[in-house]
Amino acid sequence: MINYEALFKVSYGLYVVCSGSKEYGNGYISNTVFQVTSDPPRFATCCNKDNHTAALIRSSGVFSVSVLQQEAGAGTIGTFGYKSGKDTDKLSGMNIRYGETGVPIVLNDAIASLEFRVEETIDVGTHLMFIGKLIHSEVLDEGAEPLTYLHYRTVKKGAAPKNAPTYIDKSKLEKAAEGKEYAKYECPACGYIYDEEKEGTKFDDLPEDWVCPICGEEKSEFIKL
Amino acid sequence: MINYEALFKVSYGLYVVCSGSKEYGNGYISNTVFQVTSDPPRFATCCNKDNHTAALIRSSGVFSVSVLQQEAGAGTIGTFGYKSGKDTDKLSGMNIRYGETGVPIVLNDAIASLEFRVEETIDVGTHLMFIGKLIHSEVLDEGAEPLTYLHYRTVKKGAAPKNAPTYIDKSKLEKAAEGKEYAKYECPACGYIYDEEKEGTKFDDLPEDWVCPICGEEKSEFIKL
Repeated sequence: MINYEALFKVSYGLYVVCSGSKEYGNGYISNTVFQVTSDPPRFATCCNKDNHTAALIRSSGVFSVSVLQQEAGAGTIGTFGYKSGKDTDKLSGMNIRYGETGVPIVLNDAIASLEFRVEETIDVGTHLMFIGKLIHSEVLDEGAEPLTYLHYRTVKKGAAPKNAPTYIDKSKLEKAAEGKEYAKYECPACGYIYDEEKEGTKFDDLPEDWVCPICGEEKSEFIKL
Repeated sequence: MINYEALFKVSYGLYVVCSGSKEYGNGYISNTVFQVTSDPPRFATCCNKDNHTAALIRSSGVFSVSVLQQEAGAGTIGTFGYKSGKDTDKLSGMNIRYGETGVPIVLNDAIASLEFRVEETIDVGTHLMFIGKLIHSEVLDEGAEPLTYLHYRTVKKGAAPKNAPTYIDKSKLEKAAEGKEYAKYECPACGYIYDEEKEGTKFDDLPEDWVCPICGEEKSEFIKL
């Protein structure tokens, strides 16, 4: 028996993983970035095969990781987490530096950056796992706290995008009791839940120019649960 | 150029990873446990090839993960993190349950447990990465916070064991300024640093039965830095 709530007890950070070159690049939000060996330092990251960035990592053989700060804004998370590089030039308008390998590194909301050369690509099913050797790392903001997935879920009320390894189909979680006076509204883009009871304001009473605090989706797109 | 301080910005939890059978089992402390695919839920964990548990996972093809709570005591972390299964029967005296596969699951300080069958074993250098399919998971303590590696390092003042993927040779970190009035003492077993300045008490003034708060090592074994 699998209790999906137990999976939320596993800790992760949140990162922008980027790939490509000076000519063209793309990135996505990942919570699965972790060190796999200490000497030499090697890291792994998982990328959905459907992600535009997966193809870029395969072709360029390099990727960068930007560690997001706790106060990361909807602009960075919304662009990299809930838009596709197939439709949008995500790096346009972002603060980008190019690494030793030419890989783009996103500096927006980043407290540290790491640059990797891919040593191995492993097919793990829906995702590819890239194992990279660390070739450059630096601290960009000494004082700021890293954003954790727990903070993102519980304080920022964000949900995992469909392509994330940690995505959970809500029908698998226990249904909340029905018949309440307060309603909940879900952002169709990022899964953010607006809970009237917690917020203290009816959804209908929010201004019409109110947007999703996670990804910037418009109020009119929200779906009543 | 690699700045090792940047590696500390990557977030992890802390877990007891266990393997074996009802007859014999062993476990170790890991910070690298992470979901790699959502459907079916698959997780990966890295284990140093020198770890006794690595051989058990290979032979039994199963492993369990116990998510540690924030207030996990020195008993659990000291036994699983800083002792070797070659010398000690780590499971003796622990609160153990056996999973569907017969794998031992450590319940001490655990807030959730996950049970896996190994689907793939990948050699990543000093470590083996085991990819397991989740076959059972449950929440053991609804209210408790998971222990994060950041909390372990900054609040509990613990360091990574030598066999951990995140172990950092201290000579690679910038040397602290010398000639201070206060001294620091290091636990030879777990790397915990007793800092006289922060603690407000000279190491020599601590009672002789004082032990390392992380792993229980005796005061007399500490090394002045």
